[in-house]
Amino acid sequence: MTVRDLVELELHEAAHQVAVGEVSPVDLVQASLERAHAIEDTNAFISILDDALEVAEASAAMLRAGYRIGPLHGVPIALKDNINMRGTLTTAGSAVLENNRSDHDATVVSKLRAAGAIVVGKTNMHEFAWGGTSANPNHGFVKNPWDMTRMPAGSSGGSGVAVASRACQAALGTDTGGSVRLPAAVNGITGLRPTIGRVSNAGVIPLAWSMDTVGPMARSARDCALLLSVIAGHDAQDPGTPAVAVGDYLGGIDAGAHGLRIGLITDYSLHHMQPPVEKAIREAIDVLVDLGAVVKEVGIEDIEGNISAQLTVEAVEPSTYHQRNLRLHRDKYGDDVRLLLQAGELIPAVHYVQAQRYRALLRQQMLAAFEQVDVIICPTLPFTATPLGETLVNIDGSDEEMLSAIMQFTGLPSLTGLPALSAPCGFDHQGLPIGVQMIGRPFAEAALLRAATAFQSVTDHHRQSPSL
Amino acid sequence: MTVRDLVELELHEAAHQVAVGEVSPVDLVQASLERAHAIEDTNAFISILDDALEVAEASAAMLRAGYRIGPLHGVPIALKDNINMRGTLTTAGSAVLENNRSDHDATVVSKLRAAGAIVVGKTNMHEFAWGGTSANPNHGFVKNPWDMTRMPAGSSGGSGVAVASRACQAALGTDTGGSVRLPAAVNGITGLRPTIGRVSNAGVIPLAWSMDTVGPMARSARDCALLLSVIAGHDAQDPGTPAVAVGDYLGGIDAGAHGLRIGLITDYSLHHMQPPVEKAIREAIDVLVDLGAVVKEVGIEDIEGNISAQLTVEAVEPSTYHQRNLRLHRDKYGDDVRLLLQAGELIPAVHYVQAQRYRALLRQQMLAAFEQVDVIICPTLPFTATPLGETLVNIDGSDEEMLSAIMQFTGLPSLTGLPALSAPCGFDHQGLPIGVQMIGRPFAEAALLRAATAFQSVTDHHRQSPSL
Repeated sequence: MTVRDLVELELHEAAHQVAVGEVSPVDLVQASLERAHAIEDTNAFISILDDALEVAEASAAMLRAGYRIGPLHGVPIALKDNINMRGTLTTAGSAVLENNRSDHDATVVSKLRAAGAIVVGKTNMHEFAWGGTSANPNHGFVKNPWDMTRMPAGSSGGSGVAVASRACQAALGTDTGGSVRLPAAVNGITGLRPTIGRVSNAGVIPLAWSMDTVGPMARSARDCALLLSVIAGHDAQDPGTPAVAVGDYLGGIDAGAHGLRIGLITDYSLHHMQPPVEKAIREAIDVLVDLGAVVKEVGIEDIEGNISAQLTVEAVEPSTYHQRNLRLHRDKYGDDVRLLLQAGELIPAVHYVQAQRYRALLRQQMLAAFEQVDVIICPTLPFTATPLGETLVNIDGSDEEMLSAIMQFTGLPSLTGLPALSAPCGFDHQGLPIGVQMIGRPFAEAALLRAATAFQSVTDHHRQSPSL
Repeated sequence: MTVRDLVELELHEAAHQVAVGEVSPVDLVQASLERAHAIEDTNAFISILDDALEVAEASAAMLRAGYRIGPLHGVPIALKDNINMRGTLTTAGSAVLENNRSDHDATVVSKLRAAGAIVVGKTNMHEFAWGGTSANPNHGFVKNPWDMTRMPAGSSGGSGVAVASRACQAALGTDTGGSVRLPAAVNGITGLRPTIGRVSNAGVIPLAWSMDTVGPMARSARDCALLLSVIAGHDAQDPGTPAVAVGDYLGGIDAGAHGLRIGLITDYSLHHMQPPVEKAIREAIDVLVDLGAVVKEVGIEDIEGNISAQLTVEAVEPSTYHQRNLRLHRDKYGDDVRLLLQAGELIPAVHYVQAQRYRALLRQQMLAAFEQVDVIICPTLPFTATPLGETLVNIDGSDEEMLSAIMQFTGLPSLTGLPALSAPCGFDHQGLPIGVQMIGRPFAEAALLRAATAFQSVTDHHRQSPSL
């Protein structure tokens, strides 16, 4: 196989080919590393782990000796640089942590190792994950492979670009207000925010404790299911992970969308977005209806309050975590993040408590809506990739502030702790990818992955790749 | 029976005497109302419900016709004035709510009705429950029946005085930072703060949502058990009440204290209190050891942080709830409560989040301690009743601020959501009552009630009454 053939393999295909001896981990990892170096202009990686080749050789030797470690044996994966991996730098994209070499693996990394995956790099990100554009002041602005003059969203921008550019079969990101789903949508790949607590955060640098989660980013929903089945589960090291059994994410994934009840939230799901985004979302719904899904409207009171509640929680919790470092290392923070952290310290506790109470009521309403529908659909974000460095975005003829505009739809599942997936569903007139967001019940990731797989079985948006 | 004989009956005795026809609800309620009017100088009641006599007559007629509504049939109970009862004023002791006539029953009131209890009055309290002395600016400072120049603690001071003065067989209070346990201790009665979520708050005016709970106040632990068995349980109207089965609080209550593992927290349980309080607590522990209990020391890191965390949470949540009313009705709030509410609005959210994180770690440590012990013992408060109107209290030779000093021991279970009971365990040299606090595992109220009943089976502190 050529390098191109190897990197084009989806995660589950690569894992299968390794298992049956058709492809060697050494070839896969070599192709991945080559590709990672080839796309250095995108600034997708903070560290490329060339030593992974030695791991691949050992991995290949194990296979020859008859040992398959687990379902991801010998397959290249990238990690967002806020996830600790023993012996590597974990900077979270910040100069504050420029010399922070990890001496432990995050729980998700232990789980990847137990599955046999090989980590090929640590990906670039919005500094400390506190922003949606991955405009990193220390490692370069991450660039969108579909148009290098545009941003890849964030904060897991490097993971999104690495997967879209075929520099690895899949990657882990982290999602607080949308940081897995936004770069998935903007780079034309599939990303899953699991239910809060489904995946351990032990060994991951926090942004906002009450919303943070690790999530898989890959070419397809099937690949996200495979990765989730490896990283999910209760972890004694993270008290936020309840002892809920891990689902069989792959078992029923091909069951289709017949009878699926799609919910659209009144004045929200198809409201306030750029016209090409609305068109693509409507077409995605039509595809699912053709597969046998039915559409219902659901009402959520005060839905518009979710942005300010989201911004309040997302401002306060990082400012709490960073309070000490901000005093010790003020000048090492990038301007945008420093300003957000300083602003967050000024928010009165009564506003935070109000946001938390709004949040509890919003979750109750969402759970009530899920008695009538199986999945709620809306865009992942209301626009396509903006030019690098922009802090405003035009929607409905008015310029809006990037941070709140980009979280218009992803903040809803973040605030309510619900799982949500972004899948590619089309392109705008400039060829920029659009993502559809599917939101599900708590711990019902399998239902989201099944719906997205049904969609991907009859569409090929997720198979397009940038010409980079 | 004379009026004195009737009011001296404990709750379970009165309920039994009514059930077997020895005592009429009319006589009980009449005696209770007479007594309530006789102690008007204590300012214990905001409303005395003389109409209760008509209810008692109907209740007696039902009994004659062969109907016993439930386990509290015909027995007089008082309610703290922040608990809604249909047709009565519910002022929470504030001029802000001076005309607030309830049109619904709180869930606990519905449950009392279903058990056949008769509400004879609404009791005075610290305004909006935000304080520990019951120095009410609208209905008079509540006075301690053991010494009318001293305070009865609070915020459920009126309930404590009403029970201690034999104006009712039992009462409901509410407890956020200690508001059931403190007046229980200071007035020489027994009071229980149930596990957070064990009793519904629906229809109760909130103080601090994350710590508020209704709790029983009565002469003995047995009576608290009877009352708890009536009011406990999941309530669809209060999402904070989980579907945990209600315990059999009376079933094993006489099982004694043999083998009970008592925990004392290092540098806390017997630390920083007035000498007569320390002496009484040590004697109470000796009594339990004589009954077969064993004592272990347990360490809790950063235990001293619990006061500031408690004050932060207790300052912020009421300020959130009152924010709008404080602007509309500023002058109707008493000076002390207005100041606390204004101060609470100034607390930054990062401090609140830090307090909540401290709280989670403290709870983890408490749960770990409960793997080694069954009940943790300390005083309910570190001093005995102070003169009316005092805002400072002397402990260990230094004057301390009342609000933080009074919550030194009660804040711990409040912050961690654990059940805690205060039982009378002696008197100081001025004849003022002292209370011992027993803290238990989540939803293990039965164990606390059993330990306290064992203690009360061999002591008579709880049978003493003020000469008033």
